[in-house]
Amino acid sequence: MRSGHSLAFQQFEEVLSEITIKKIDKNEKGVNELYQNYKKNEAEVHTFIQPFKMSWSAESDWEPDDPSEVSSGTCIIIPLKKDDESGLLIRSLGYAEAQIAQSSYQFSNDGTLVLKTHYEQSIAEERIWFVSENVRCRSSILKTSEGSGILQTSFASEVKRISL
Amino acid sequence: MRSGHSLAFQQFEEVLSEITIKKIDKNEKGVNELYQNYKKNEAEVHTFIQPFKMSWSAESDWEPDDPSEVSSGTCIIIPLKKDDESGLLIRSLGYAEAQIAQSSYQFSNDGTLVLKTHYEQSIAEERIWFVSENVRCRSSILKTSEGSGILQTSFASEVKRISL
Repeated sequence: MRSGHSLAFQQFEEVLSEITIKKIDKNEKGVNELYQNYKKNEAEVHTFIQPFKMSWSAESDWEPDDPSEVSSGTCIIIPLKKDDESGLLIRSLGYAEAQIAQSSYQFSNDGTLVLKTHYEQSIAEERIWFVSENVRCRSSILKTSEGSGILQTSFASEVKRISL
Repeated sequence: MRSGHSLAFQQFEEVLSEITIKKIDKNEKGVNELYQNYKKNEAEVHTFIQPFKMSWSAESDWEPDDPSEVSSGTCIIIPLKKDDESGLLIRSLGYAEAQIAQSSYQFSNDGTLVLKTHYEQSIAEERIWFVSENVRCRSSILKTSEGSGILQTSFASEVKRISL
């Protein structure tokens, strides 16, 4: 369950989505391409251990005319650990803009994962934390790239589906 | 703007509310009563510096038949500082249940204020953080008092109204 808040217009969005997160093999299609793209732009290069793939399909109440309209997508994510608390995540598709994205991540002392991503037009800040073994929350803030205005916030309550 | 998520029923709630937070005098009606109530139940007693009063009025989309139905209330909050990062908040009215409530607070290393409150029937965990000078976010999780099930989550995006 995800709620979006458009602050300027005081509009709510309600989204129901299914997310699948899977570990994938280092040799899987797309992983090396994404890593090479990262390497060519960086002076200091980190190695990676376990890439994964995230897929989603979402239904929003902002498309009431055609509720069968489901938005979906897939992206590859490669974590690059700097130290125990921080590092980078590179993604084949960004959260706020549909392009390759690089996020910095940092764990707070209470275990919250804080992700920051600079896009061309915007800056996204996400927080992900577990509130029980199988429920996690995720908040995101979208700012203008100048960093002054908050365009939008969102909050997701995510329940892990245990495969039997 | 506040969104509530009922996880078991996948139901969204949308709430628009106005919140007023004001510093109040130590001698204001109710402050001493609340502090005495706290003192009589505690072995280790902390002193307080600056009490404040919070008032709210909220409109929820769960009362569509009577949109003029506004829920509102007021409570006194007394912060009791233990050290620079933590302490207690005592409130004349709880967030999850309408009774005197005592919360422990803790600041994370990223500046997030984490509040935990044990009620008779439930445990509430709130997080409050500023995402810009005048926008703050607040998430809350309501668990059963056994602490196992998550009953409800909510998320608020709050814009400070600057008085001119």
